[in-house]
Amino acid sequence: MNYLTEQDLDYISVGAAVLGAGGGGDPYVGKLMAKQAIKKHGNVKLIKVEDVPDDGMIIPSAMMGAPAVMLEKLPNGNEPEYAFRALEKHLGRKAYAVLPIEAGGINSTIPIYTAACLGLPLVDADGMGRAFPELPMTTFGVGGIPSTPMVVCDERGNKLVIDTVTNDWSEILARTATVAMGLSSMIAIYCMTGAQLKKYSVKNTISFAKKIGQRLVEANREKTDPIKGLLEVTNGFNLFEGKITDVQRDLTTGFVRGKVLMDGIESCKGSSFQLDFQNENLVGSIDGEPIALTPDLITVLDIEKGLPITTENLKYGQRVIVLGIPCDSFWRTEKGLAQVGPRYFKYDYDYTAIEELVKRMGR
Amino acid sequence: MNYLTEQDLDYISVGAAVLGAGGGGDPYVGKLMAKQAIKKHGNVKLIKVEDVPDDGMIIPSAMMGAPAVMLEKLPNGNEPEYAFRALEKHLGRKAYAVLPIEAGGINSTIPIYTAACLGLPLVDADGMGRAFPELPMTTFGVGGIPSTPMVVCDERGNKLVIDTVTNDWSEILARTATVAMGLSSMIAIYCMTGAQLKKYSVKNTISFAKKIGQRLVEANREKTDPIKGLLEVTNGFNLFEGKITDVQRDLTTGFVRGKVLMDGIESCKGSSFQLDFQNENLVGSIDGEPIALTPDLITVLDIEKGLPITTENLKYGQRVIVLGIPCDSFWRTEKGLAQVGPRYFKYDYDYTAIEELVKRMGR
Repeated sequence: MNYLTEQDLDYISVGAAVLGAGGGGDPYVGKLMAKQAIKKHGNVKLIKVEDVPDDGMIIPSAMMGAPAVMLEKLPNGNEPEYAFRALEKHLGRKAYAVLPIEAGGINSTIPIYTAACLGLPLVDADGMGRAFPELPMTTFGVGGIPSTPMVVCDERGNKLVIDTVTNDWSEILARTATVAMGLSSMIAIYCMTGAQLKKYSVKNTISFAKKIGQRLVEANREKTDPIKGLLEVTNGFNLFEGKITDVQRDLTTGFVRGKVLMDGIESCKGSSFQLDFQNENLVGSIDGEPIALTPDLITVLDIEKGLPITTENLKYGQRVIVLGIPCDSFWRTEKGLAQVGPRYFKYDYDYTAIEELVKRMGR
Repeated sequence: MNYLTEQDLDYISVGAAVLGAGGGGDPYVGKLMAKQAIKKHGNVKLIKVEDVPDDGMIIPSAMMGAPAVMLEKLPNGNEPEYAFRALEKHLGRKAYAVLPIEAGGINSTIPIYTAACLGLPLVDADGMGRAFPELPMTTFGVGGIPSTPMVVCDERGNKLVIDTVTNDWSEILARTATVAMGLSSMIAIYCMTGAQLKKYSVKNTISFAKKIGQRLVEANREKTDPIKGLLEVTNGFNLFEGKITDVQRDLTTGFVRGKVLMDGIESCKGSSFQLDFQNENLVGSIDGEPIALTPDLITVLDIEKGLPITTENLKYGQRVIVLGIPCDSFWRTEKGLAQVGPRYFKYDYDYTAIEELVKRMGR
């Protein structure tokens, strides 16, 4: 039987930052909360999707809003459990296990905290295999699972049970409530059966985050090449090595939109790289030609230690490596691309798989 | 036994516009809905506060948002019943009767519609005895009755069950949801027992609105002086007769704030009147001296027919009478004035009762 320990949290939080693809928030606060809960309640049992009975009920637990806000407006710690129990009560059923909604960023560690507090197992899966900014952008939602009834609550004790006619309405109503609550809230959402979980989740992503983080942490401890290990573990591609020459950000739309320009170094000398992001990194181009497109993962790493840098921490002069990781195959379907492909984010590209783009460019 | 008929709706809607004190929205759409429902389901039983058992549950039904929006974004007609039933379901109890939250404006007629659809009696009372713009501004709220659990729903079928720690938070969260739903929603709120109803409601206000409206309609039909009858029925004061010389409006704060200036005519010749409003008319002054202050009611009437003019319909050149009506005594308590007195709305006046101000000014 597999249990998540305090040590595992150190690995998962690093791996989740890689899978965050530049967004999803720093898993730091969630890690501290989860470690504290494990110290108090014991290690969290990590179960496989196959271990969940087909008729068992699963509830994802997550933070909503601006993760940066959580560093100053700290949760009181009861919200995730409060939201979870409120949804159980509304449904009149007890949940079998807790599920992460995303594998990247802060929402990889929050559900571990929730599971520890509730004494429930955590399912080794999620609804993205990475991070995305909006509630409908999950394999669950694209698969047809309604996001509601959902619960949104804050640290004061305010609580909403939301029922909507579409997942887009859940995004609108939960988002406006979250903004009114002070830009962050805790939610319980997308309750589903074990049968639905098996059909529509991205599997083994918590183990995957742990494996990535462990490889990076150990490479740094043993002074071996962190990037080499990372590429092996993720089946990823070293897309570019460069020095950041410009960072442009625009926050007027409520999201962080912008781009980063880099001049090539080492083997990339003479080339330039452009990274476009909207919270997450979405399009990477070398000399004007796309080399990686959403929903494939694009993560910027510090060149020395291979540690991930989120979009808000990208700065002029940093020497970085751009890593590309193939997304889960679910996202490459027509339905998946309609929800999270380049055109959804208003980029004028048809999606092409990263393996194909890398081959074409001969990298 | 007293029943509300289609004919009564014509009277109530006029009287409710007088009690709206310039705000609360035109009762027109609600009137049409209520008439249609009465035609379909039969007349609505109007019961006294004393007829409700102490342990019976009462639920107010109301429209939230910008009443003007309802003229274009029509309700589908199921929302009031849907919100009401959802709150009953959440509470696990059936309601004994429907209650209006305010006696002025559109929310005087909406609950009649709800009662007709549900086949429930309507209580002849409300939580304001007039109109006010925010959810905490009720005798219920000031009396200590929690506004939540409450339900907010829209014409699409989206629904929120909101539980808050204060009535101010209900205002914030229900208001942001209403704005997101397209500026109007239907709500079920402030559920209470018969015992609480008896203690904290303004009594007989639907009959009062009907009496006011009937007197006005009949005076116009019989070509008698409408203002004279109105003053008798309301115990009101003719504060000023004037011609509007200026109307200033500011919508930047989400409310309609502004003022209206008038030059005196007839017996008021030589004097000027200033009316300050924020959705509702809040302060009336003659030559710079206040003659009526919130929460007392100030209503502007067309000088010919004595019919009420809401703030959005005030225009340069109109010849009008300003009517003042004493508010319910509950609002004149310290707690009441803290919630709806002049200082709450940022006017630099201590409240003085309209009877006293009129006597002082020798009008």
